[in-house]
Amino acid sequence: MKKIEKKTSSGLKIIPLGGLEQIGMNITAFEYEDSIIVVDCGLSFPEDDMLGIDLVIPDITYLKNNADKVKGFVITHGHEDHIGALPYVLKELNVAVYATRLTMGLIENKLKEHNLINHVKRKVIKFGQSINLGQFRVEFIKTNHSIVDAAALAIYSPAGIVVHTGDFKVDYTPVFGDAIDLQRFAELGKKGVLALMCDSTNAERPGFTASEKSVGKTFDALFEEHKNTRIIIATFASNVDRVQQIINSAYKFGRKVVVEGRSMVNTIEVATNLGCLSIPDQTLIDIEQLKNYPNEKTVIITTGSQGESMAALSRMAGDNHKKISIGQGDTVIFSSSPIPGNEKAVTNVINGLLEKGADVIFQDVHVSGHACQEEIKLIYTLVHPKYAIPVHGEYKHLIAQAKIAKELGMPKENVFIMQSGDVLELSEESANIVGKVPVGDILVDGLGVGDVGNIVLRDRQHLAKDGIIIVVLGIEAGTDQLLCGPDIVSRGFVYVRESDELMDEARIVVCDAVEGCLDRGITDWGKLKSCIRDSLSDYVWKKTKRRPMILPIIMEL
Amino acid sequence: MKKIEKKTSSGLKIIPLGGLEQIGMNITAFEYEDSIIVVDCGLSFPEDDMLGIDLVIPDITYLKNNADKVKGFVITHGHEDHIGALPYVLKELNVAVYATRLTMGLIENKLKEHNLINHVKRKVIKFGQSINLGQFRVEFIKTNHSIVDAAALAIYSPAGIVVHTGDFKVDYTPVFGDAIDLQRFAELGKKGVLALMCDSTNAERPGFTASEKSVGKTFDALFEEHKNTRIIIATFASNVDRVQQIINSAYKFGRKVVVEGRSMVNTIEVATNLGCLSIPDQTLIDIEQLKNYPNEKTVIITTGSQGESMAALSRMAGDNHKKISIGQGDTVIFSSSPIPGNEKAVTNVINGLLEKGADVIFQDVHVSGHACQEEIKLIYTLVHPKYAIPVHGEYKHLIAQAKIAKELGMPKENVFIMQSGDVLELSEESANIVGKVPVGDILVDGLGVGDVGNIVLRDRQHLAKDGIIIVVLGIEAGTDQLLCGPDIVSRGFVYVRESDELMDEARIVVCDAVEGCLDRGITDWGKLKSCIRDSLSDYVWKKTKRRPMILPIIMEL
Repeated sequence: MKKIEKKTSSGLKIIPLGGLEQIGMNITAFEYEDSIIVVDCGLSFPEDDMLGIDLVIPDITYLKNNADKVKGFVITHGHEDHIGALPYVLKELNVAVYATRLTMGLIENKLKEHNLINHVKRKVIKFGQSINLGQFRVEFIKTNHSIVDAAALAIYSPAGIVVHTGDFKVDYTPVFGDAIDLQRFAELGKKGVLALMCDSTNAERPGFTASEKSVGKTFDALFEEHKNTRIIIATFASNVDRVQQIINSAYKFGRKVVVEGRSMVNTIEVATNLGCLSIPDQTLIDIEQLKNYPNEKTVIITTGSQGESMAALSRMAGDNHKKISIGQGDTVIFSSSPIPGNEKAVTNVINGLLEKGADVIFQDVHVSGHACQEEIKLIYTLVHPKYAIPVHGEYKHLIAQAKIAKELGMPKENVFIMQSGDVLELSEESANIVGKVPVGDILVDGLGVGDVGNIVLRDRQHLAKDGIIIVVLGIEAGTDQLLCGPDIVSRGFVYVRESDELMDEARIVVCDAVEGCLDRGITDWGKLKSCIRDSLSDYVWKKTKRRPMILPIIMEL
Repeated sequence: MKKIEKKTSSGLKIIPLGGLEQIGMNITAFEYEDSIIVVDCGLSFPEDDMLGIDLVIPDITYLKNNADKVKGFVITHGHEDHIGALPYVLKELNVAVYATRLTMGLIENKLKEHNLINHVKRKVIKFGQSINLGQFRVEFIKTNHSIVDAAALAIYSPAGIVVHTGDFKVDYTPVFGDAIDLQRFAELGKKGVLALMCDSTNAERPGFTASEKSVGKTFDALFEEHKNTRIIIATFASNVDRVQQIINSAYKFGRKVVVEGRSMVNTIEVATNLGCLSIPDQTLIDIEQLKNYPNEKTVIITTGSQGESMAALSRMAGDNHKKISIGQGDTVIFSSSPIPGNEKAVTNVINGLLEKGADVIFQDVHVSGHACQEEIKLIYTLVHPKYAIPVHGEYKHLIAQAKIAKELGMPKENVFIMQSGDVLELSEESANIVGKVPVGDILVDGLGVGDVGNIVLRDRQHLAKDGIIIVVLGIEAGTDQLLCGPDIVSRGFVYVRESDELMDEARIVVCDAVEGCLDRGITDWGKLKSCIRDSLSDYVWKKTKRRPMILPIIMEL
């Protein structure tokens, strides 16, 4: 009997539902017979052409179609690209969530915002601890990353063990907690690992990523150097260790600390409550108390290190911050590096701060949270997997990690560059892409989830580029006589007050077109509309070389 | 008599009309009594929020108001940010243009496109040659830059000599022509220079910029390494020296060269005709001939190194190129680095090429065309100016150069960080900002120059973010009865077919609002419209948390 069961078994399936074509939206299903577990459930931020979109979440059709199999979400760490889609997805598929302490704290914040906190089963897992989920057992392994409590996962299935690193780096001297549990990676490697799914983000960078603690030394040096100015430091809200080190330096130099920016305040509160951040008494002060201290005795920790237009630092740079204004005697430190795509926004904020007279430091006050090439080699060598599946990164990063794996002696055919939706079936004997499941971007715009798709986006792009011309006319039902109009209204096309002639002529063009149609007895409003659209579009292109959207509206009276 | 004249003299005025708040749109007026000369006349590319805009040119109101004084345009080199606005500006202010050989060749191409070639007086100037323009004499001095025939200017005025470097670097071993004429800079310095206006682009970078020739060596090494693949190289169309070196390597390795991309073809044609580029016989082939040669015997030089969506390389990466398709066995080299703001677009193209199976090389096959810190120090030391006015760069670059000037011993008060529109009056005795002239961005959209302003842009931004809802109704004149409608049409808001309920309810909301107004006897259509707008806007916000543009159109029948 057992043998027959084994024969019908379809092996272990690994199905990334996002995260492989872009940075963000990490979510991967692991399926074995009647059991599915899902690792991470992140969002991504909209591409430049996704106009008006707030965020992007994965299509989980495959999980919904197999809802009875899904045993839970297992989360590696608390960054948006790993937890951000949870509240949306849990509304569709309510299963339990497993994560470490701070990760769960940040998830719970989100569930509260979405009124889900009482409806979702949650369990905080300690490092070294395992949970059984159907045919799977999942063990959480300590790693280091730019957020506290990041975990790698050892996923035990009947087909073998898969090690998933999550986002990680090797930090021998972390600020909080232990170094990455390299011994456990080694033990698993000895035991035999079927597949390694390893973070590729920095796979193009040679060497090692520096320890987070090195940034603390830089802060001390900068505080020493800028003893006579106020210090404003922008960094990632989620980087609790970074905030800890700023607070340490501030305390050492006798400065009070103000925290500014909603996400920064939230994260610090969660981290402090969970014991991941320790703030000496009377170090934090309220923003209102700033005026009671001389500038050189204060530090402001703020959001906005990516040049986000609504973040606190951008508002300070643009003179739109109600409580803090920047000027000579301020030292602004960017403890961050721009995420690809944000370079120009960051530079604009830097220029704005410099124009106000501030001293701005924006280089070498940051270390990455991701493993460079030598760290990736270390993990591969400890884990010694049969198969490698590079994850977390753009295509060029995945390729770079694949190259490393091959340099380490892995056979080319055992390294898989997967695409979202691919179904990879793995066993000790073989590994093959055996299918494809539906995947895609679900766009979130305000309260709408998925109600903006390609058609709406295309319209927005069209409107953005050249605006819209609306033509309204009233036609008498039955007689097909033009009763009123055509009236022409435009938005985003030309400044109408200075374009009288153009708009007057446009009206004549439309009149001629309409009369021509009616004279020819055309009473199909669809045809009439396309006649209006064509003639007006031609005229406008000839006159302006622009292609505004043209929207004829016919009222039948 | 002469003395009295001198007393009424108002000194030399330097008036930047653009180029100091951003990269691009370089244009600076020099005024002495009845004479104005203008150095450069560039465009800039639209900022991210300038939706639908093709390019941006400077406001030359000040020059038009002083048209009788303007003696000519003096152009330093042929990049778009120094010549791109000329055809637009010359239509408003037709004065002579002075430039070196290749610079003039590129300007003439533009004038032909705009049908101006027979209407503009032009004179090609040689290095070392001077021209007299009213009270000014202008000498062209050889420099090096990422385009051939770049010049610095020595501007002689009765108040003293101003040296303007243009964009430059110090290249002791240039590919074409001589090294920068450092001796002439030294002679001028000996003679006494009133002010130096020096390129700031790389003022944040320590050390020296490498010679253009170093890229040639890299090409040779890459050609050697990739003997068995086709090679595709993307670079800046205007970098004639780079193209020359690619052709040299191709010739050396027995490869035929195809040039792809309109701007690349144009520049190569101009440069070849002027003798700035020498192509061995039978090296260039037409794209149609590619199929007659084995892949490993061809090189394609292409535009698109900045990830521009319509450029040849992006089309190849996206499978939209009619004649070239990329795959395994292609080596694509980016001989460029991304201009700030283009990083993500470039990365997207790289990922696209990698996904097709190409080998992509995008690092260390480029050198900058701008002077780093040590080169800037060299020029300051040779020219030894009384005043320094850092130019060409963002605010942070200007600040970085000002810091260098001060480190070299210049008094703080002699270094001027100017803003566009500032009027700096200079003499041997004093230097002061004495006024402000109108400056600004004139937006070019299709054929329209300046017809898109803030209102149109704001509308485009609004439309882009949340789309538009149009409400049309017909009201009987006299009786103020609602005769037809309200009809609701939306674009870019929601996918209407899946939002029936929302749109039906919206219609009811509008109906109620209209009837409420009419019942209360409101017959001011302005009031009725704002009532419709408010009620519909509230409803839509409540339901979707979006703020589409709402456009009520009332037809009076």
